[in-house]
Amino acid sequence: MKFSLHQSIEILERTPVVLQNLLESLSAIWTSNNEGGETWSAYDVIGHLIHGEKTDWLTRAELILSDDVEKKFQPFDRFAQFENSKGKTLKQLLDDFKEVRNANIKRLKSLNITERDLEKTGVHPTFGEVILYQLLSTWVVHDLDHISQIARVLAKQYKNEVGPWIEFLKILKQ
Amino acid sequence: MKFSLHQSIEILERTPVVLQNLLESLSAIWTSNNEGGETWSAYDVIGHLIHGEKTDWLTRAELILSDDVEKKFQPFDRFAQFENSKGKTLKQLLDDFKEVRNANIKRLKSLNITERDLEKTGVHPTFGEVILYQLLSTWVVHDLDHISQIARVLAKQYKNEVGPWIEFLKILKQ
Repeated sequence: MKFSLHQSIEILERTPVVLQNLLESLSAIWTSNNEGGETWSAYDVIGHLIHGEKTDWLTRAELILSDDVEKKFQPFDRFAQFENSKGKTLKQLLDDFKEVRNANIKRLKSLNITERDLEKTGVHPTFGEVILYQLLSTWVVHDLDHISQIARVLAKQYKNEVGPWIEFLKILKQ
Repeated sequence: MKFSLHQSIEILERTPVVLQNLLESLSAIWTSNNEGGETWSAYDVIGHLIHGEKTDWLTRAELILSDDVEKKFQPFDRFAQFENSKGKTLKQLLDDFKEVRNANIKRLKSLNITERDLEKTGVHPTFGEVILYQLLSTWVVHDLDHISQIARVLAKQYKNEVGPWIEFLKILKQ
């Protein structure tokens, strides 16, 4: 499948609703536990997604499309949510994510990105030159990666309860 | 986390809504493609979930709670959906899944399962003796496994579009 802005937005606009339906009002034992050690809970992941909306995806896309000479991306802070989410309920985070995501989709649409724009480049702190359509594709896949992760984190809470079925449940072995 | 009927139903009742929000009205290019070879598309997975509702989870739970002497489970057909889904749109399948799942949750609640019932056993065609709480936990984890799988199948459609970011996206390597 080739990158399509329309088909990308189809996924991007669903993510907040999917996460709200999956997580809102769920018992905290599901949403505040992680996979052990330094891994993230569902609560942590939503904070991470909010930080991405505020500092990463669209900010970088706009830099690529700007007149800036260097177009060097700021490094992304993968741990910002541990500070930013403090004192917030999961419901607040889900609402915040929905709000920033919807605003970003509106801004994204207003950029009127052309096929030619999609080939423009910026400079990633690790990868060097990257292309706008790669950034936007990654935004979509990153959403799906975290939906998949949240399903896995929830599933693992029952790892010791499924008995012999663990053999058939790939998600518990990841 | 120990098995809890209440907390299990919290997840089971969300799954149809989550899948509807994730998949309904999405371009067919997202939902009818698979991960290559004999793997399943999102469309195939929904058919599989419907077949589970009709022949597997609750049917087996009711057999465990019945007066049947042997309590031997029928083997589950993992490929039934390829015949059963024929001619149906994804929207129809999502609606069908919601309907059978909601009916099953109603029946599950009406069984008034006690703590003692949860320890009762049946005979699985592969594993031999299994316990009711293991079966019900597996029902929950199985839902989450397929939510995670669908996110992965969608993500993989952009595998060639993300460029160097593939290195950071675990979901594309599974």
